[in-house]
Amino acid sequence: MSDQKTTDISSIGEFGLIERIKETLGDERSGISKGIGDDAAVIDLGEKGSLIMSTDTLIEGIHFDLSYMPLKHLGYKSVVVSLSDIAAMNAVPQYLTVSIGLSSKFTVEAVEEFYRGVELACKNYEVSVVGGDTTASRSGLFINVTAIGISTKDTLTYRNDAKVKDVICVSGDLGGAYMGMHVLEREKKEFQANPDMQPDIEQFSYLVGRQLKPEARTDLIHSLSEIGIVPSSMIDISDGLASELMHLSTQSEKKFKVYEDKIPLAEETRSTCMDFGIDPTTAAMNGGEDYELLFTLGLEDFEKVKNHPDITAIGYVEEGAGPVLITRSGNNVPIKAQGWNHFPDQS
Amino acid sequence: MSDQKTTDISSIGEFGLIERIKETLGDERSGISKGIGDDAAVIDLGEKGSLIMSTDTLIEGIHFDLSYMPLKHLGYKSVVVSLSDIAAMNAVPQYLTVSIGLSSKFTVEAVEEFYRGVELACKNYEVSVVGGDTTASRSGLFINVTAIGISTKDTLTYRNDAKVKDVICVSGDLGGAYMGMHVLEREKKEFQANPDMQPDIEQFSYLVGRQLKPEARTDLIHSLSEIGIVPSSMIDISDGLASELMHLSTQSEKKFKVYEDKIPLAEETRSTCMDFGIDPTTAAMNGGEDYELLFTLGLEDFEKVKNHPDITAIGYVEEGAGPVLITRSGNNVPIKAQGWNHFPDQS
Repeated sequence: MSDQKTTDISSIGEFGLIERIKETLGDERSGISKGIGDDAAVIDLGEKGSLIMSTDTLIEGIHFDLSYMPLKHLGYKSVVVSLSDIAAMNAVPQYLTVSIGLSSKFTVEAVEEFYRGVELACKNYEVSVVGGDTTASRSGLFINVTAIGISTKDTLTYRNDAKVKDVICVSGDLGGAYMGMHVLEREKKEFQANPDMQPDIEQFSYLVGRQLKPEARTDLIHSLSEIGIVPSSMIDISDGLASELMHLSTQSEKKFKVYEDKIPLAEETRSTCMDFGIDPTTAAMNGGEDYELLFTLGLEDFEKVKNHPDITAIGYVEEGAGPVLITRSGNNVPIKAQGWNHFPDQS
Repeated sequence: MSDQKTTDISSIGEFGLIERIKETLGDERSGISKGIGDDAAVIDLGEKGSLIMSTDTLIEGIHFDLSYMPLKHLGYKSVVVSLSDIAAMNAVPQYLTVSIGLSSKFTVEAVEEFYRGVELACKNYEVSVVGGDTTASRSGLFINVTAIGISTKDTLTYRNDAKVKDVICVSGDLGGAYMGMHVLEREKKEFQANPDMQPDIEQFSYLVGRQLKPEARTDLIHSLSEIGIVPSSMIDISDGLASELMHLSTQSEKKFKVYEDKIPLAEETRSTCMDFGIDPTTAAMNGGEDYELLFTLGLEDFEKVKNHPDITAIGYVEEGAGPVLITRSGNNVPIKAQGWNHFPDQS
């Protein structure tokens, strides 16, 4: 390979790599409504509807740190991450496969603890584990969860159909999981410096919970379905609001105008941001793992949910391109997606 | 955790671990015909038939060695391994998700080479990649492939329905992939001792091909379907004939009587076994990764395929328990499944 061109993955990033993989794989085949490039794949089942399928991988040292992530929480979160992708298609997840690779440090009891978390998530979300694979790994733990759901075609929501004048909405509040990670990282460092120290995370329990035990917003999918609303576009907020706004804006080919003062933040997020000297808007924009939903609604539909306690309008869709933040001081700032870069050490 | 019981995974093995996971996950839920414990999960789609779903993980240093496994072959094989599980249900695979975790040693070109193998397998087997996940890993490469197919319920074949007097059949020949690995391991050692040496694998090309580029026997699934035959039980031979006979025999609650002199072996497998001082029956029984099919047919159905060049009858099903080998010298030897132990270093 010495005379061949070599390109570091870090130089093109994760999204660049996915583009190259798509090119290598060539055209999509028949029967697939949407393939690589949305939250989940959609496979046409004819009269039966559509099969929604999504897969996620979590790797120790990249996606989680077992020094503060209890295994049961990790099992729960692994399921939630996959369910969230199905919810982001406005569909309800039903079945899972869970595969794990285990290094020699893990005992049978540790594996059972992980699966107790998986089981709890399955109960809470009414999904079933139908299969999986269990294998050894040379180092650390990795997890792959594939979730599927079956849905009617006309309720599916993609990323590319936001319309001019649509209202941009988010569920819940943002930035909490990111600040929870900061709290846990700080406690870890303090514990390493002084192992006798008692951890002081009680006052941060909301934020730590957002990081360690997030929830997928399937409840909101059921709510929207009951009111008879189908969003025009939707995505789950796994990489931070900025990155997700960029996806919807780019794929819908519209301008997404978002007001900084409308971004929902929990009081604990605000105060902890102060504590850490982090701008709360940055936590919401560039933090990740909140697993809330970002979606757009036509004005008529928005009227039906505007009093919903868990839905916040943060802006609207215009002709144009790219997401823009209207700051508290009234400036228009183009939003750049930073998101999470999983390939930071590869340059 | 110091006062809690801890159990090494090696003390209960992979199948023991799967049993503990099944207990942790509790009862299967509605809509699942078969969950954990067959080659693939089966989900009831009502009138539309059944969804067949299987997931497999391959980890560098455990399942493959990149010093002799070209990345394109690895991509091909990763797909084949998953397709084989769907074929083992007597179903035809249609869609895949492919997820990879990459350490910093991999370039964009290396990833493309891997996906060229994936794409070739997709073309050959007429399946489509509908999604996946791409992430960094701390060390080495790992791959997860989830395959799905949609099938009519009455043609699905499980592991637990072999009947007394059924004929036990295998496709192709066995032990080749195992001997291919021995050849590659020997060449690797010789190359490490003397890097100027030219590899001498041409005379072993059949065996090396069996190891590096196996095929899933979806062709046989199509053949059986054309003749109108549904096997009474079936499994793919990924862990060696002994292990797979044990699965069918145990789950069908029947004795499986297999004749040593009937086990199909390629001439190259026999001669290379001689060369390495390995018993060819051991290579077939305890080697793995041939990805041929082991299945049982009623006598009437067997009559229809007995001249098929790629199907060999190796024995028959009797009342009783466990698989038994009738040796060349006429002895009855109970077959113990050794298979592949992925947790050998964990004691």
